[in-house]
Amino acid sequence: MEDCFKKIKSVISEYINISEEEWQWYSSMLKLKKYKKKEIIYDINSNVNNIFFVNSGILRKFFIDVDGNEKTFHFTMEKGFAGDYDSFINDTPCTYGIQALEDSAVIVMSRELFQMSYKKLEEGEKLGRLLVEDYFIIYSNKLQSIYTKSPSERYSIMNKLFPGILSKVPQHYIASYLNISPVHLSRLINS
Amino acid sequence: MEDCFKKIKSVISEYINISEEEWQWYSSMLKLKKYKKKEIIYDINSNVNNIFFVNSGILRKFFIDVDGNEKTFHFTMEKGFAGDYDSFINDTPCTYGIQALEDSAVIVMSRELFQMSYKKLEEGEKLGRLLVEDYFIIYSNKLQSIYTKSPSERYSIMNKLFPGILSKVPQHYIASYLNISPVHLSRLINS
Repeated sequence: MEDCFKKIKSVISEYINISEEEWQWYSSMLKLKKYKKKEIIYDINSNVNNIFFVNSGILRKFFIDVDGNEKTFHFTMEKGFAGDYDSFINDTPCTYGIQALEDSAVIVMSRELFQMSYKKLEEGEKLGRLLVEDYFIIYSNKLQSIYTKSPSERYSIMNKLFPGILSKVPQHYIASYLNISPVHLSRLINS
Repeated sequence: MEDCFKKIKSVISEYINISEEEWQWYSSMLKLKKYKKKEIIYDINSNVNNIFFVNSGILRKFFIDVDGNEKTFHFTMEKGFAGDYDSFINDTPCTYGIQALEDSAVIVMSRELFQMSYKKLEEGEKLGRLLVEDYFIIYSNKLQSIYTKSPSERYSIMNKLFPGILSKVPQHYIASYLNISPVHLSRLINS
């Protein structure tokens, strides 16, 4: 097995049982790609039929809000999945973009791989269900965070979700993610 | 087959192939319940391990926002599914409640049914994946609506999503769903 696929194999093996033979096929469909710090992996409105697994580095998912401002939606750290799952399911242009915030190595999973794995892996549908459940929970938490949490609660949840993020990500992205001003973020950090 | 299960059978058959034998078992696990207009089906913080399919009527999903005000999150009309899928997956108390807005007949689907159907239906995992994909898309659209759509765009999307809703649901719930004031909603209706 290529060394670069070790992490994704361990994560997938937490979701389902996958035989060595299945893994041979599955891993033959994966591709490793490297991105430089600040590089845009894909932009809003592009047609990207991939989900990305973070081998190393940090990714930032962003969108353009109703006033035309770029906002940070989410971060993905090592061993997490990133992508625009909505457009991935519906085969529509992306409403989010993804940027590397550090030099990052990601594993590219194509829609073809997802669709074939539903048939070719004994537990392929289960893998699909569990991955989309995790995506669903991210979005559900995001909604609850917007609706029902105060800025300081959002800040505290973020620190649990992304350990060490304050030392890794520029503060203006963090403030944008929390939907607060950079001044408000400074107050929370220093409180 | 009991007449009351016709609609859910047709919806499930759009997702997967289900044999007559499988359907016998599946439908034996379903329960029909009736609720009066304005009745709370379950409240926030209750432990509800069910998803509801709307046979007839309209349901409203609500939550309490950060300021302690009740807000409308979503509506479910005939042939739609309603529930707190997040707490359903994680077996945690509900962060949303559900209310009937009309006299409603709903089919109760238990967590036990979901978990058993992953094993007992040949395409049970696929059904689970497709249902959670649909849930995911609702939440994803909600987030995009909050972040990237103007009130008039949200109003227009709502009318497509819930045909005839203006004549069926009190306007203060609709204004709350759109996150605008009742006065603003009146202006949109009359524009």
